[in-house]
Amino acid sequence: MSRDGYIQPDVLNQECESRQALELIADKWTALVVYALVDGPRRHGDLRRTVDGISQKMLTQTLRKMEAEGLIEREVRDRVPPHVEYSLTPLGRTLETPLVAICEWAMEHLDDLRDARAARAPG
Amino acid sequence: MSRDGYIQPDVLNQECESRQALELIADKWTALVVYALVDGPRRHGDLRRTVDGISQKMLTQTLRKMEAEGLIEREVRDRVPPHVEYSLTPLGRTLETPLVAICEWAMEHLDDLRDARAARAPG
Repeated sequence: MSRDGYIQPDVLNQECESRQALELIADKWTALVVYALVDGPRRHGDLRRTVDGISQKMLTQTLRKMEAEGLIEREVRDRVPPHVEYSLTPLGRTLETPLVAICEWAMEHLDDLRDARAARAPG
Repeated sequence: MSRDGYIQPDVLNQECESRQALELIADKWTALVVYALVDGPRRHGDLRRTVDGISQKMLTQTLRKMEAEGLIEREVRDRVPPHVEYSLTPLGRTLETPLVAICEWAMEHLDDLRDARAARAPG
């Protein structure tokens, strides 16, 4: 700790708040919701269909957590019928690069992962 | 599906293998182990101390999973006493950029997250 009480953030230190921040974002559902919102706001049902395989409960939980942490915002659109849209906040947009990179890594390295598994398979 | 049976990977599709790849890497312990190995190989006990808060069991499980997927390699160093070192494989090194970016995001945006939580706190 420096003299003014400021501690340099260190994600390797479990007492550091950055560890909780990492827990928030190093999560597949958070990554997929960010990935799904990159091109613009979406409604709840639209997100549910886009992020294939997410349960209603997990989607609600993920959106609430992301909203509470200031990553997304929820806006009631005054249309007929009124509906709610979710979009990335400026803070959430700062996650685009790393989280989209992770999603893209997953799509780009399928063959490498398959080869690595095959190389280790017995026989 | 195209005519030759090749399906464009789509991480939003839960049937796509890339979803499993995402599950593998969108994980705080995987991110922290990659972060800890960026500067070079480390021994098990060294990793245990560096990735503060990881349990023996979780570290072993994370290392085994990463080794099985070809992200790290385990090398027995023929010294006295002999010891085992873990290092990133070339495939594992491709994760450096996105996973280090996530760890750095966590360290850089602490204040923003704190402000966002405070703005939403009642009263």
